[in-house]
Amino acid sequence: MLLLSKEDIQKVFTMRDAIDADKQAFILHSQGKSEVPLRTKIPAPKHEGVFLFMPSYVEDLDIAALKIINIFPNNIDQGIPSAPAQVLLINGSTGVVEAVLDGTYVTQLRTGAATGAAFDVLARQDARIGALIGTGGQAATQLEAMLAARALEEIRVYDLNIERTKEFARSMQEELSSYGARIVAVGSSDEAIEDADLIVTVTPSCLPVFDGNKVKAGATVSCVGAYQPHMQEMDPVILTRASKIYFDSKEAVLSESGDILIPLADGTITEEDFTGDLGDLLLGKIVGRENEDEIIVFETVGIGTQDLVTAKTIYDRAVEKEIGLKWGEAETPRPAIMA
Amino acid sequence: MLLLSKEDIQKVFTMRDAIDADKQAFILHSQGKSEVPLRTKIPAPKHEGVFLFMPSYVEDLDIAALKIINIFPNNIDQGIPSAPAQVLLINGSTGVVEAVLDGTYVTQLRTGAATGAAFDVLARQDARIGALIGTGGQAATQLEAMLAARALEEIRVYDLNIERTKEFARSMQEELSSYGARIVAVGSSDEAIEDADLIVTVTPSCLPVFDGNKVKAGATVSCVGAYQPHMQEMDPVILTRASKIYFDSKEAVLSESGDILIPLADGTITEEDFTGDLGDLLLGKIVGRENEDEIIVFETVGIGTQDLVTAKTIYDRAVEKEIGLKWGEAETPRPAIMA
Repeated sequence: MLLLSKEDIQKVFTMRDAIDADKQAFILHSQGKSEVPLRTKIPAPKHEGVFLFMPSYVEDLDIAALKIINIFPNNIDQGIPSAPAQVLLINGSTGVVEAVLDGTYVTQLRTGAATGAAFDVLARQDARIGALIGTGGQAATQLEAMLAARALEEIRVYDLNIERTKEFARSMQEELSSYGARIVAVGSSDEAIEDADLIVTVTPSCLPVFDGNKVKAGATVSCVGAYQPHMQEMDPVILTRASKIYFDSKEAVLSESGDILIPLADGTITEEDFTGDLGDLLLGKIVGRENEDEIIVFETVGIGTQDLVTAKTIYDRAVEKEIGLKWGEAETPRPAIMA
Repeated sequence: MLLLSKEDIQKVFTMRDAIDADKQAFILHSQGKSEVPLRTKIPAPKHEGVFLFMPSYVEDLDIAALKIINIFPNNIDQGIPSAPAQVLLINGSTGVVEAVLDGTYVTQLRTGAATGAAFDVLARQDARIGALIGTGGQAATQLEAMLAARALEEIRVYDLNIERTKEFARSMQEELSSYGARIVAVGSSDEAIEDADLIVTVTPSCLPVFDGNKVKAGATVSCVGAYQPHMQEMDPVILTRASKIYFDSKEAVLSESGDILIPLADGTITEEDFTGDLGDLLLGKIVGRENEDEIIVFETVGIGTQDLVTAKTIYDRAVEKEIGLKWGEAETPRPAIMA
């Protein structure tokens, strides 16, 4: 079994690779080639937590995966991540668990890469200004995904706490200096989105975090944070201004995301307004951006296939480059012979 | 995260410990204190395999567990175990995956220990002769469990292939010499069970593997192998001769085991003949052996709680004795602050 930490993964896998992996995942999803059974959820009410077990299987890739991601918001008080996770990769021909990967980082990569994949195919080629709203655990890879998708000159970052936002912008500027963009903290959401070509929201907010009327024509917007029906970070006005609305998976979005469920329930939009899944666009089954002025919205909640393809790609590279910690080996079996 | 191989586990955990862990698991099960959601099953028809994901949670112990056990019968041709497995142990207060244990060995231990727990409380104290039918992957721990439960003088082992059986008996004699019992291969099932006080069947057979009329009065029988409705290794005659029939979990046995389902369907027995679950006996809620002549049957298919308690006990010992491979550490989180 191969054990792959965040540092190991960073040695063999870039955001560009993650975007390619997510594209493959969205295509497999649209082709009906990925099997993602309902996740198992066990609440731990004593600690206000929940254990989530998310299996997936792609026969074409001969790989199964399981992500364990446990949501324990009170961890923050102890300095522990609030959603500790691991991804296990399972050989599809033998059932042997081949690898355990830092699931927190795989989740960050594949979640950022969903935005990257959407901007890659939907954003204007001449996009120069990005806006990022939210500086939590998923923000860094969202920011890098914007940079990987388009040659941006500037990304403006906004969050409620200005000190935290400045610190985030500073550390991102350092970490991602090779992209050559300015990463700046700004004092308001309006300031962040003014003139922005790409907008990402990645917050757990239950109230819209930007003014949809102030988004410029031609912008592409990716909303990432609303993974529960009561969460709504997207200003619904943007849905009425947008000419196209895409999802990672319509089925998943309509079972989870308040960003879409709330405006659907109050009649702001109807299902007629939905353009379709990104995988269908990648397969050429539906249309993409048709002019430089339309506003396009992408809503993503995440699907298990992204974890599987991302982990599998990382694993293949790590094996090739002999990265990671090897642990144990298969035993010689003692087969049952009485039949 | 702590990684515990079979060799690590053997340094800190004995069969006697495994029997105590299973008893605790059966008690938790009977008290309704263990949560075991339906397992998720993904078939991999191309390779005639199936992936099984078995989560469990015990709030009282503040621990969740997941066993991944994948059944790929064709692995035998490649010299790989046909049911590769891993057990993950998850901290119930933080959701952090604390340990990965060799799940094949944990399964062998807890499955053997179920028989050990049953014999411990149900077998005659003066038991001297054991019979083991089957020499597959689960056989070694069944054999040790018999030795741990009673001071046996001899265990007779039978399987279809006499050469394999001899090799198994020889290697077990060597490995378990400290128990001071003779372990001998015999040429027939009749020879194995003649005069046996303890009988274990652990085969994937669809036809009874012993003659129930030849079991002696006072014997205790544990049937382990029939984990599917069409599997029947137990001669149903023994059910009509037995004065008491116990299960690890009646619910689990009645959803899986042909040993009980087939005789129930054809009217050989009725539910009235069932005495109850071993956990209820351990809690003193139901009666155990009442005289030296009664034949007692125990049927076990395994419950997730056994994996959880076994893995948790092993983990606690390993931490205390600093055994196992440590991998990675918790990252400092970047909490989301926009709410």
